[in-house]
Amino acid sequence: MSGTAPTPRDPDFAARIRRSFARQPFMAHLGAELVSVAPGTVEIALPLRHVLTQQHGFGHAGATWAIADSAAGFAAQSLMPADRTVLTVELKINLLAPAEGRLLARGRVERAGRRLTVARSDVVATGDDGTETAIATALGTFMAVEGLAERET
Amino acid sequence: MSGTAPTPRDPDFAARIRRSFARQPFMAHLGAELVSVAPGTVEIALPLRHVLTQQHGFGHAGATWAIADSAAGFAAQSLMPADRTVLTVELKINLLAPAEGRLLARGRVERAGRRLTVARSDVVATGDDGTETAIATALGTFMAVEGLAERET
Amino acid sequence: MSGTAPTPRDPDFAARIRRSFARQPFMAHLGAELVSVAPGTVEIALPLRHVLTQQHGFGHAGATWAIADSAAGFAAQSLMPADRTVLTVELKINLLAPAEGRLLARGRVERAGRRLTVARSDVVATGDDGTETAIATALGTFMAVEGLAERET
Amino acid sequence: MSGTAPTPRDPDFAARIRRSFARQPFMAHLGAELVSVAPGTVEIALPLRHVLTQQHGFGHAGATWAIADSAAGFAAQSLMPADRTVLTVELKINLLAPAEGRLLARGRVERAGRRLTVARSDVVATGDDGTETAIATALGTFMAVEGLAERET
Repeated sequence: MSGTAPTPRDPDFAARIRRSFARQPFMAHLGAELVSVAPGTVEIALPLRHVLTQQHGFGHAGATWAIADSAAGFAAQSLMPADRTVLTVELKINLLAPAEGRLLARGRVERAGRRLTVARSDVVATGDDGTETAIATALGTFMAVEGLAERET
Repeated sequence: MSGTAPTPRDPDFAARIRRSFARQPFMAHLGAELVSVAPGTVEIALPLRHVLTQQHGFGHAGATWAIADSAAGFAAQSLMPADRTVLTVELKINLLAPAEGRLLARGRVERAGRRLTVARSDVVATGDDGTETAIATALGTFMAVEGLAERET
Repeated sequence: MSGTAPTPRDPDFAARIRRSFARQPFMAHLGAELVSVAPGTVEIALPLRHVLTQQHGFGHAGATWAIADSAAGFAAQSLMPADRTVLTVELKINLLAPAEGRLLARGRVERAGRRLTVARSDVVATGDDGTETAIATALGTFMAVEGLAERET
Repeated sequence: MSGTAPTPRDPDFAARIRRSFARQPFMAHLGAELVSVAPGTVEIALPLRHVLTQQHGFGHAGATWAIADSAAGFAAQSLMPADRTVLTVELKINLLAPAEGRLLARGRVERAGRRLTVARSDVVATGDDGTETAIATALGTFMAVEGLAERET
């Protein structure tokens, strides 16, 4: 996105995304929190706890992937018209370090198209002292979909 | 793996993988079940329920990714020596259809190396009548790791 | 594609793909040959020679990627209407062994959609004795495009 | 790489990479030029010409992928000890716009490990007026290899 903040097509995009996030039972099941929403960028936090870990005691990559996907997908949706919702076409993740502590996924649009949007997510572990450790980086393709209703929760 | 079943380096591989699976609290949090373990192939099932869904009522791709990753990773581990455990280096998934019903992830080793193994996972939705619908296909890289202890649960 | 050969929407698909292949100067620059075209599957061969190698004397992965991409893309195009052409949205490749000798890329459609098609390519090195060595495996997303003219060569 | 330039383990890294690049006949076959080499970042340019195009007259994605792969791989090699060479484990690319004019691939290390390095490449088309158009973005895994001799050319 060449550093410049793009103009959202839907002035109400932030409220719409907060609504969509609240309608994802899986985010609640993980314990993920929507931290920030801006045009083309969305942040989601996930405090790791025992139920989210794998056999070595680290956070399971599936939990990391889930917030990376949602952050990138909502970043893509933030630039779409109000009547569109977003579906993940494909997403690739590289895991950089074992996941521990509090995760923060930063989704960012790389290129917004009419139908397809390319977005990335960088996931870091944030320390109480403000330090950040790179945990994962993801790159994917998201599709704008019409007439796919979101269910009420 | 060119159709021929490879010879596992650890005769006890199946029990070892069932142990590792049982040590993944995240798999229990999702409600995933280890269905089958064979040399180079592992199957994991996930009955979808409300807490695993996204805003459109379908299974969240994070749940699909998690069993695809575990099935492929354990398939890789099934061909590793007894003192090795497996870590996901990277995994790419293409989502083919909305996830509904009971998911089944089939992990399969494509090429087993000494340190790196390439494996894939195909995720289908299985109907009561035995029909299968392709939900996702994933391809990734897994690393054999020494001296990484699995915690007791 | 679950083993069953799909029905092409364009009965003239094979001639159309051979025409498109002939209109790719890059395939000629590599020395690639279109080996076979069937509904949902396309094979492209590439005899490696010095100009295609990297610093270790093996085929450069860029040459392997190029035929993997074209084989998968044309496999996708083989199931599209006559007025559509195909563009690669994204493609991920895992390199399995150093490329030597004669490469053969087998493109295969995994799921054909109206706009997006998911296809894979497996690249092998074929020996004179009929043996095959797995060189690479690729998975990607391809888009059907209207009104994009192919230039005459 | 958090913005700070890492310290190369081999003080002679730049000369070593220029040597390796010169030993890649495929880069010469494409007409690619090594533009810059710094710790953790490498730039490769490719002026597009007819032999590099596909059926629509744009640069073939295989040419774009090849310089993206080499730029990221050499960026990874720039931080490796003098006795190591680099192999691509896997690389995923998203194509953002049709390739025309002069391409520039910027490879950058995301995380340098002892054996595995994660690096990305962003490919832009550079105009005579200094403008840049995003053409592709790639993310991949590279392996440090010992005792793999580079051939003399």
